[in-house]
Amino acid sequence: MSELERLSITIPKGLSTAFDKRNARKKYASRSEAIRDLIRDVLVKEEWADPKAQVAATVTLVYDHHTRTLTDRITELQHDHGETIVSALHVHLDHHNCLEVIVLRGAAKEVQALADALASIRGVKHAQLTRATDGKSIV
Amino acid sequence: MSELERLSITIPKGLSTAFDKRNARKKYASRSEAIRDLIRDVLVKEEWADPKAQVAATVTLVYDHHTRTLTDRITELQHDHGETIVSALHVHLDHHNCLEVIVLRGAAKEVQALADALASIRGVKHAQLTRATDGKSIV
Amino acid sequence: MSELERLSITIPKGLSTAFDKRNARKKYASRSEAIRDLIRDVLVKEEWADPKAQVAATVTLVYDHHTRTLTDRITELQHDHGETIVSALHVHLDHHNCLEVIVLRGAAKEVQALADALASIRGVKHAQLTRATDGKSIV
Amino acid sequence: MSELERLSITIPKGLSTAFDKRNARKKYASRSEAIRDLIRDVLVKEEWADPKAQVAATVTLVYDHHTRTLTDRITELQHDHGETIVSALHVHLDHHNCLEVIVLRGAAKEVQALADALASIRGVKHAQLTRATDGKSIV
Repeated sequence: MSELERLSITIPKGLSTAFDKRNARKKYASRSEAIRDLIRDVLVKEEWADPKAQVAATVTLVYDHHTRTLTDRITELQHDHGETIVSALHVHLDHHNCLEVIVLRGAAKEVQALADALASIRGVKHAQLTRATDGKSIV
Repeated sequence: MSELERLSITIPKGLSTAFDKRNARKKYASRSEAIRDLIRDVLVKEEWADPKAQVAATVTLVYDHHTRTLTDRITELQHDHGETIVSALHVHLDHHNCLEVIVLRGAAKEVQALADALASIRGVKHAQLTRATDGKSIV
Repeated sequence: MSELERLSITIPKGLSTAFDKRNARKKYASRSEAIRDLIRDVLVKEEWADPKAQVAATVTLVYDHHTRTLTDRITELQHDHGETIVSALHVHLDHHNCLEVIVLRGAAKEVQALADALASIRGVKHAQLTRATDGKSIV
Repeated sequence: MSELERLSITIPKGLSTAFDKRNARKKYASRSEAIRDLIRDVLVKEEWADPKAQVAATVTLVYDHHTRTLTDRITELQHDHGETIVSALHVHLDHHNCLEVIVLRGAAKEVQALADALASIRGVKHAQLTRATDGKSIV
């Protein structure tokens, strides 16, 4: 972690009390860590507004692997975008259902396009893009 | 505003620099105000997790007022829930389209149910619940 | 409403059963209306991806009107952006708290910038942009 | 996939045209598949409203593995919740940053609590819960 800085902020007493209660419920060890998390969250969220920003992301897919050609289509699409796809984790939920999480990196715009392509494959029951960060701009 | 408190937090230098840049772009006058906003946002969001919590909210509707019986249905529903509905603002977007914002108060669960009922009226083009706060727990 | 079209779609039986149950809970009178709403929602959401798209929106603010200069700042900002702001509704939540809903129209980018400016005013407890549509592209 | 059903829905012509254009952009092969996806998305989203509902989810974490004790804490927490955690995928983003995706299953409430616990660990730069489905109720 980079060099630390000490900031002083003013805040209404009632607000800090409510925040402390919330942090206890969320199991935060310190108020500083909770505030750092809020700051990082808003920075990551806003990072994605620039289509050229370099980002990391995950796509979560749920599908029935019995659906004809589905697994082939997913594999094919991942190979076609080898430079954007880092890795994938496959979980067998039950006899029918698979959950696959794919980790992606690249320009926000390309990551979004690839997530769209995966979501639109016939037989994919659920697809969701989780917008994360490559951590470089978020210390 | 209630009594102010001064908090001291530690934060990586790189993170506070990125946050300051973001706050300038968002036109924040001070870092304290930006942090207070992040704290209030997360408290309001989490307030709604309790179905009995007393909340305030707005519902935004867009519809074509030419749709038969639509305006009657919306008015009727508002009168049936007089205790939850505070007030409504009606804007004529063009010859066809109206935008109506309805302010609601009550238990989170009832507010959600009424928003669902408004959204499902035939002819409503767009309906969205905005989860706000009655401000009591957020100083 | 514009001319109607009849579409035929194929869908797994289990999915349509689950959807019907959900629509009953949400008080939809027909499956068609529920599907129309899902389509409109996704179109409105994606409309905002283009910063130049003409949109309608609401901003919901909660604040303590006793905060010095706050009301002046909000009013001033609304007058400075007269062409974007259509109208505003003010509700007195209690002795301290006000809720104000402002209806905005214009290019997505300008609407977002104005919402940011309103949110960052010192003393605003809660601010939220609700992304709606001007209804023109959503029949 | 389960038995298929043919549904007939009525929809304004302008809306189906706009939807077709959107589906082409999103690379959908058919309108039916696009509608099925909208239905599944709304069902999955609403499934989580019941804290006891059995769900699947992923948690995406980004962190600097040099942060003292961080990796130990994450591993420990995963072992303490062995019944909820299915599997995890670890990706080295650069010399400092790791991305870890953890697949979880269980009651919505427990999954949420574990995600909170992971997010609040000191040194985790970014944490996000992606609410998916175990696929059972979504055919």
